[in-house]
Amino acid sequence: MKRLSILGSTGSIGRNTIEVISSHPDKFKVVGLAANNNIELLKYQIQALRPEIVAVFDETAAEALRKMDLQVEILSGEQGLVSVATHKDADMVVSAIVGSAGLVPTYEAIRSGKDIALATKEALVMAGSIIISEASERGVRILPVDSEHSAVFQCLNGRDMNEVEKVVLTASGGPFLRKKISELDSAAPEEALKHPTWNMGRKITIDSATLMNKGLEVIEACWLFNLPPEKVEVIIHPQSIVHSMVKFIDGSMIAHMSLPDMKGPISYALSYPERFSDVLPMLNLAEVRELTFEEPDAARYPSLSLTYKAIRTGGTMPCVLNAANEVAVEAFLDNEISFTSIAHVVSGTMAEHKAFNAVTIEETINASNRAKSKAAEIVESFRVGAGLKPARTKRM
Amino acid sequence: MKRLSILGSTGSIGRNTIEVISSHPDKFKVVGLAANNNIELLKYQIQALRPEIVAVFDETAAEALRKMDLQVEILSGEQGLVSVATHKDADMVVSAIVGSAGLVPTYEAIRSGKDIALATKEALVMAGSIIISEASERGVRILPVDSEHSAVFQCLNGRDMNEVEKVVLTASGGPFLRKKISELDSAAPEEALKHPTWNMGRKITIDSATLMNKGLEVIEACWLFNLPPEKVEVIIHPQSIVHSMVKFIDGSMIAHMSLPDMKGPISYALSYPERFSDVLPMLNLAEVRELTFEEPDAARYPSLSLTYKAIRTGGTMPCVLNAANEVAVEAFLDNEISFTSIAHVVSGTMAEHKAFNAVTIEETINASNRAKSKAAEIVESFRVGAGLKPARTKRM
Repeated sequence: MKRLSILGSTGSIGRNTIEVISSHPDKFKVVGLAANNNIELLKYQIQALRPEIVAVFDETAAEALRKMDLQVEILSGEQGLVSVATHKDADMVVSAIVGSAGLVPTYEAIRSGKDIALATKEALVMAGSIIISEASERGVRILPVDSEHSAVFQCLNGRDMNEVEKVVLTASGGPFLRKKISELDSAAPEEALKHPTWNMGRKITIDSATLMNKGLEVIEACWLFNLPPEKVEVIIHPQSIVHSMVKFIDGSMIAHMSLPDMKGPISYALSYPERFSDVLPMLNLAEVRELTFEEPDAARYPSLSLTYKAIRTGGTMPCVLNAANEVAVEAFLDNEISFTSIAHVVSGTMAEHKAFNAVTIEETINASNRAKSKAAEIVESFRVGAGLKPARTKRM
Repeated sequence: MKRLSILGSTGSIGRNTIEVISSHPDKFKVVGLAANNNIELLKYQIQALRPEIVAVFDETAAEALRKMDLQVEILSGEQGLVSVATHKDADMVVSAIVGSAGLVPTYEAIRSGKDIALATKEALVMAGSIIISEASERGVRILPVDSEHSAVFQCLNGRDMNEVEKVVLTASGGPFLRKKISELDSAAPEEALKHPTWNMGRKITIDSATLMNKGLEVIEACWLFNLPPEKVEVIIHPQSIVHSMVKFIDGSMIAHMSLPDMKGPISYALSYPERFSDVLPMLNLAEVRELTFEEPDAARYPSLSLTYKAIRTGGTMPCVLNAANEVAVEAFLDNEISFTSIAHVVSGTMAEHKAFNAVTIEETINASNRAKSKAAEIVESFRVGAGLKPARTKRM
């Protein structure tokens, strides 16, 4: 019986996690649940799973949930998330809070010796060095939940890393793969939110349209598999059937495929080293008929090269990239800046940052917060308004 | 230092094997070489590799080679092949003799405790039960050299076989994948010998055109990986980039890809559990652009269903299928019967055989020889001659 705390239980990963464990009631017990503010769904989850501890990040929402009298301790704020993440009865923490808010709870879970099923890639993007050395010191296992990293993990399967030539992460290319580059600037949030193959949250769907999500995954892969950035490649694969691949020194390549459904990688992280049966319908390639691949177009996806630049710079730069992107995506979703301005905000914020090696999580968070302020300033200067749209004419 | 005997050293697999080991002179020593009758090439191989023992199956050719005075013991006949296969100094035998002639030397190598790099699939097709139990008793490792089985072996990589749902062998579909079925009957040997992706010997190239080769590989996979036939599927994949795949119970699939070049699987069988570097150029899927898959058409490839029928019948039936096919392919290459008659010869021979469980290699060979006689009779009745072409109008 594995005892779990789920951080981000009402999000896409959280809901899929609960679906997976509901098929295996003999194997899992949910100890803790944490969410941002969706207390309606959280209430049902509490009633169904009977956790020992619950946290709601949003104070007002937490208070409203407390009034529902669900006979469970309900905490709030970041400290509440941390309490769920470190609860003494949890063996494993599913870390699935979107964005930088997931960093501290994930870090504290590792410090408490909990194994991590990691969807919050920001934890590694922002503080990879600290997270990985802490996990290694405490013998904590970090199991990837991202489909790409789960794929790489399954392709590696205990093979000698010296025989790995490259890791190749696949990217669908998002909704704008075939859109005229000249028309990207006027793309509306609703268009960018229409992901062709994956059904995910809003932030990550926009990150898929810019390929920033893939860039963050490159950073995540470097940390998870201890690889330099030049050993991690990205290839566009619109069908999202091949989830990633590993190239070996002899010219062999091992690929992981499945239907695109997050229950696959979630299930593997939870069941590892075993596999559950019947998680996803079996893939029939004769029905898929065709798998296609192409190089990502740098002009279409400037965010991807920004991420490589950030990794090569190292230190706090990936953290700053991520912080600026969070601000920029929110501004885009709020119709404050254009789609192509997202990369401009990120690149502008990076240009103003002098990277250093953060040795504590606090330093990391401070760097992230300063980058967010800087990004907000840049957003302000790019703001779409009153017929004046500077971002739409600016060129990088 | 691994000491090798190579059975079939002048064939396609043998030549590629020698190419691979020539890149690693520190890791391999060739102890023995055996060939059918190509003594010109064998002479060069002897001079380059300085083996301790040589065998030429063909007596006349052996005698001619002896006259070249190469200062090495030159044996002949099946007993010669067996002596090379069982030479006391060999650690591993590369079994790459085409057809049923490879059975006895492979079997004797196993009985002498040699690890086997197996290309001669006929050994398992004809006598899988005997070969596998002998290997298991003697702790002999059988490493697949066929690209498909090497791919499966690499995809499995020590995973729990209980988690395997299916093994999927890919087939290029051969040169007749898009030919009108009505025109298959008049296909000439030269057309059938033009394989679109693999450069191989004549017998196996015809077997690729009929898909009999894939059928034999299904039988081989059942024995190598201890799978029932319903767990081994075939899918057409004309690009020959994905060499095979394993489907797991959770809906995941692991695939092995590389450029189509036998040096890949040969190298892996020789280097296992390690990998050599730079065996093949690295695969770039963005250059390949497209991988396609389709179900094999039963009307186009009747041989494939014959092989499933043979496995399900069990006992000597796969051996009989293989024997009849050898006779039929030779007759086709000699312009004695039409292309579509190959399957008719096989099916006719199978219809006349009552399968039994052979417990010795002798019984197996007797069944094979009887099947060859029967097949030769059927060939005779199908013979293309004097404007009378019964096989071309016959329907199964």
